[in-house]
Amino acid sequence: MTLPSPTPLRFALLGTGRIGQVHAASVAASPDAVLQVACDTFVEGAERTVGVYGGRATSDPLAAIAADDVDAVIVASPTPTHVDLIEACVEAGVPVLCEKPIDLDITRVDAVRDKVRASSTPVVLGFNRRFDPHFAALRARVRAGEIGRLEHLAITSRDPEPAPGEYIAVSGGIFRDMTIHDFDMARAFLPDIVEVTAVGFSQFSDVIKSHGDYDAAVVTMRAAGGESVVITNSRHSAYGYDQRLEAFGPDGLLQVDNVADDIVRASTQTLASAGSPFQRFFLERYKAAYSLELAAFVATVRGEDAGSPDFEDGRAALLLADAATRSAAEGRAIAVDLS
Amino acid sequence: MTLPSPTPLRFALLGTGRIGQVHAASVAASPDAVLQVACDTFVEGAERTVGVYGGRATSDPLAAIAADDVDAVIVASPTPTHVDLIEACVEAGVPVLCEKPIDLDITRVDAVRDKVRASSTPVVLGFNRRFDPHFAALRARVRAGEIGRLEHLAITSRDPEPAPGEYIAVSGGIFRDMTIHDFDMARAFLPDIVEVTAVGFSQFSDVIKSHGDYDAAVVTMRAAGGESVVITNSRHSAYGYDQRLEAFGPDGLLQVDNVADDIVRASTQTLASAGSPFQRFFLERYKAAYSLELAAFVATVRGEDAGSPDFEDGRAALLLADAATRSAAEGRAIAVDLS
Amino acid sequence: MTLPSPTPLRFALLGTGRIGQVHAASVAASPDAVLQVACDTFVEGAERTVGVYGGRATSDPLAAIAADDVDAVIVASPTPTHVDLIEACVEAGVPVLCEKPIDLDITRVDAVRDKVRASSTPVVLGFNRRFDPHFAALRARVRAGEIGRLEHLAITSRDPEPAPGEYIAVSGGIFRDMTIHDFDMARAFLPDIVEVTAVGFSQFSDVIKSHGDYDAAVVTMRAAGGESVVITNSRHSAYGYDQRLEAFGPDGLLQVDNVADDIVRASTQTLASAGSPFQRFFLERYKAAYSLELAAFVATVRGEDAGSPDFEDGRAALLLADAATRSAAEGRAIAVDLS
Amino acid sequence: MTLPSPTPLRFALLGTGRIGQVHAASVAASPDAVLQVACDTFVEGAERTVGVYGGRATSDPLAAIAADDVDAVIVASPTPTHVDLIEACVEAGVPVLCEKPIDLDITRVDAVRDKVRASSTPVVLGFNRRFDPHFAALRARVRAGEIGRLEHLAITSRDPEPAPGEYIAVSGGIFRDMTIHDFDMARAFLPDIVEVTAVGFSQFSDVIKSHGDYDAAVVTMRAAGGESVVITNSRHSAYGYDQRLEAFGPDGLLQVDNVADDIVRASTQTLASAGSPFQRFFLERYKAAYSLELAAFVATVRGEDAGSPDFEDGRAALLLADAATRSAAEGRAIAVDLS
Repeated sequence: MTLPSPTPLRFALLGTGRIGQVHAASVAASPDAVLQVACDTFVEGAERTVGVYGGRATSDPLAAIAADDVDAVIVASPTPTHVDLIEACVEAGVPVLCEKPIDLDITRVDAVRDKVRASSTPVVLGFNRRFDPHFAALRARVRAGEIGRLEHLAITSRDPEPAPGEYIAVSGGIFRDMTIHDFDMARAFLPDIVEVTAVGFSQFSDVIKSHGDYDAAVVTMRAAGGESVVITNSRHSAYGYDQRLEAFGPDGLLQVDNVADDIVRASTQTLASAGSPFQRFFLERYKAAYSLELAAFVATVRGEDAGSPDFEDGRAALLLADAATRSAAEGRAIAVDLS
Repeated sequence: MTLPSPTPLRFALLGTGRIGQVHAASVAASPDAVLQVACDTFVEGAERTVGVYGGRATSDPLAAIAADDVDAVIVASPTPTHVDLIEACVEAGVPVLCEKPIDLDITRVDAVRDKVRASSTPVVLGFNRRFDPHFAALRARVRAGEIGRLEHLAITSRDPEPAPGEYIAVSGGIFRDMTIHDFDMARAFLPDIVEVTAVGFSQFSDVIKSHGDYDAAVVTMRAAGGESVVITNSRHSAYGYDQRLEAFGPDGLLQVDNVADDIVRASTQTLASAGSPFQRFFLERYKAAYSLELAAFVATVRGEDAGSPDFEDGRAALLLADAATRSAAEGRAIAVDLS
Repeated sequence: MTLPSPTPLRFALLGTGRIGQVHAASVAASPDAVLQVACDTFVEGAERTVGVYGGRATSDPLAAIAADDVDAVIVASPTPTHVDLIEACVEAGVPVLCEKPIDLDITRVDAVRDKVRASSTPVVLGFNRRFDPHFAALRARVRAGEIGRLEHLAITSRDPEPAPGEYIAVSGGIFRDMTIHDFDMARAFLPDIVEVTAVGFSQFSDVIKSHGDYDAAVVTMRAAGGESVVITNSRHSAYGYDQRLEAFGPDGLLQVDNVADDIVRASTQTLASAGSPFQRFFLERYKAAYSLELAAFVATVRGEDAGSPDFEDGRAALLLADAATRSAAEGRAIAVDLS
Repeated sequence: MTLPSPTPLRFALLGTGRIGQVHAASVAASPDAVLQVACDTFVEGAERTVGVYGGRATSDPLAAIAADDVDAVIVASPTPTHVDLIEACVEAGVPVLCEKPIDLDITRVDAVRDKVRASSTPVVLGFNRRFDPHFAALRARVRAGEIGRLEHLAITSRDPEPAPGEYIAVSGGIFRDMTIHDFDMARAFLPDIVEVTAVGFSQFSDVIKSHGDYDAAVVTMRAAGGESVVITNSRHSAYGYDQRLEAFGPDGLLQVDNVADDIVRASTQTLASAGSPFQRFFLERYKAAYSLELAAFVATVRGEDAGSPDFEDGRAALLLADAATRSAAEGRAIAVDLS
């Protein structure tokens, strides 16, 4: 039972869409955070948000960043706005938690990279899965040496159903939009990836195919120490959000299976010890992770080493996505340099 | 993500020991509740509590119950005080959530029974396990008819380790102190128990034996429709808090196993798919249940039918504990009448 | 892969009904056994059996026992014939494996007891479950001390569906007919049971009730060292043959769940990691156990200590069944003396 | 309980090493097969084998194939002899079950391909895993449409420990020696593979690396309908033989985990519901599969369609291994044509 801090951080939330609502709720539920400003170009969204969680509404993100009573910023607006908002936060010296990806275009990312690196202002990327308690527990045990040196990491990641065609059209492709989370998860274990081999598939969606995108993919990666990573993706999954992880080493295997709301098991004439259905999508599956991500961001702002992924992590994930995109298109392994 | 209610209930917490702290934290974490008064005859405990969670401290429970700014009371003080505090709440018309048991002596319970029944003031008993999400999910599925008519209920309940001898001495015995939770769980499925057959065992603790008490027990009960219940208890468990439930009917079996903090599984040279250790005791295992118990109490106070166990449930559990105590002593089945 | 022995034992099989067929198949599949004679008062049954597995047919069990070319006997005829056939085998000095129970009447059992005890001829009882590889593995681990001293044993045993009314009528009641296997399983762990408390239930079958019998039961037993045993029975089970076991001690818990034909697990929109249905009944569930029971009997005949349950085990199980019958009828604990 | 056939097939076993012993035992245990001749250039091995299982010994495989009293041949001799022995069997019109691979050199395979295809003599390849009851059950459910059209197949295959260096030196490399089983398993679901992308790793064995071979690999394949397959290999595994399979389709997921000798689960202070260790290697894991493989071969010889993999399956697996070898060496996807 954590005690409330005497001085919660005052947040500006930029973007009040679906993911913005997740952050607004996390802020409201945190004893260390309070929503000071909600901002959306669609100002009614911001107003509805502050109606629920308190604070004031605005449609001007730069004003929100610059406000005297804002201690930290969460960027949950559309991807194309991320780079400029990060830059504004860094210039204003306001710590920022930005949703992934930084941008779909690595040149735009690199354009602000030096400025971010030169600054001491925390720039944290929203790779929430690092904070999932199950994955974090597995990672802690790998680090504690339970399976010896990590040799192989297997990440399975399937969405319950594909995003609409209009979203797919601007998503940057499966590797930049969906696999990017898995690239970061891989790097949470093996930061120094040196080679990417990706194979894309069109298995069920003519819509996705019509956008020149894949609806399933397998990515094999090589890390600097010779470790292997395999990522398996699909844009649909009848049994809910498929988010599994396994780590293999000379001394054993650690696994995290999917999660259900409860642990009731049923046995009937046709099945045995059947679990309840897995959680449907990221709002359920990563509810705790979003809260812990925010708590880590607060700790990072306060100067602790809380394991928050940073700008360089965001850039690395995008580099891997770019490499995977090329690999799948050209049918060959792509060497990468994340340094 | 529930929204905060415009007018949270203002609570007086009577008793600020271990279980009182659980309630204080639940109140603090609830958007629908606020701690107004903390009361303890050991007033430093009350003061420490309000130092953390807010409110004012007192050593006078009757003053707390009578205070104008108190909307509801939680009784978490020692068992011998429960009856009087319940009576004071009922007389003051203040809704009360009282920890189990009402009392160890059924005559004291019955002495206030008519007054409680004649009053419309909610008197809720702290049988928190009814609100555990896993048990509640199982119960909902039984009620939905998934296994047909319930025929058999098996409750396994083992504490990680025995309470100290001085506690055992005044506990009322294993049936009134420990099994009482299981009696209530049984009644959550099968309210109308008609017969109790209990067997007590002395398996490991000379201390418990020296107090004339059992350290393990098996209780078989018959419900009015011929249904069977078996409760298995032990005062110790190396693998943590053993809290399992299974329900059997003509169409199948529903089970809830123990709970771990995470779902990581490990395979090594000596074991396969081993789960993380089960949660240690009730503070971990029933954390969610305590919050949901409070939420249900708030709803009950507001006039909803929220499934909170009431005074009659507390009395019935004690009657079953008394019957079990006699049954184990006399080596015979005891008929009970809970009406 | 066991090698065939140079001289397989030549068997007479007395009784060629359902359980006789199981034994005939076990003999045929064993490299150490050969079917020499099949006997049934319904001689066509014996003839069909030897038509499949070889040997000669007869309707005279005493001639079969006395035959020069018979090394060992399996008694699979109706229960009322068991005592006489065991006695004939003992008198002829022919080792015998007799299906449970020895008889439904303890006085008939005791009438031959001295003769059996005075003889060196092996008399083995068909408590096949002792040889189930899963239960045997659990037992070996208990004996190896993995959970410390055994404190509690829980046996769940449910048939998929009740036997026909005409069988129930002559079965001797649930405790002598069905629970008797569980009594023996309990004694495989805790031979010295000192007290039996049984509760019988009528939950679903008017036919069984009309025969004055129970269709479900819970039996609690106390062993000489204060250990507890609980047996849970039902005459039906939608999810197949429910045969579970758990052993509890100060250092942990060992469990055997039900068995399916394969370990495929399925996840769909409505369920997660569902196993294949459990095996339907004893022919499937205890197939390996019957073979291992026969192998142990052969080893016993050859003078090894192979763990075969003997006449005294058969008698003890019946004594426990008698005590349970009385306990359920009289609603009180019954002390037993198995010595 | 299958009945013995009146006329068992008389087998010549060519090669009496480790895998030859597996087949000798399967033949001995089968009611439909008898060992007539055991052949080994190291004739003492053949003599020891017939000493155990019966039949006569020889060092001349061609004489064994040509013998009048031989109905079928099992080739379990070293890989370089396979092609000639298959050819001799085909010329003699004697059905043959040949261990994998046909050869390490596709040109030698193709040299006899026309002769095999022109003949009606059954040539069956020893891909025993197709007959594993768990994998076969999963495959049957995929074929029955339980998950809809198969979209993705994941095969995990790790040996408990690497073969000795001298074996590695002549093994043909990980893809031809180890992955070849997985290629065949993939084709049991998706026969028409069109593209192979393999990545090899050196993770733990300097010996294997010194032979220019990989000790771990990930292979991604594309089937003609756009389906994906991913194979994960390692030459070591602390937790035993890692042989897992999962099939994914629009309606769900089917999985087979590793297998232990028993289903006992243990819970202690440090772990929960831990299974017994997984089976150590192929002799344990695929014991049933070898018997079922032989039964299917007998059925194939008798003219039934028993699902035995044939010469073309053996050739296809080698083509995929060759493609994987090239893919890993060249860092690019390799198109394959298995027709």
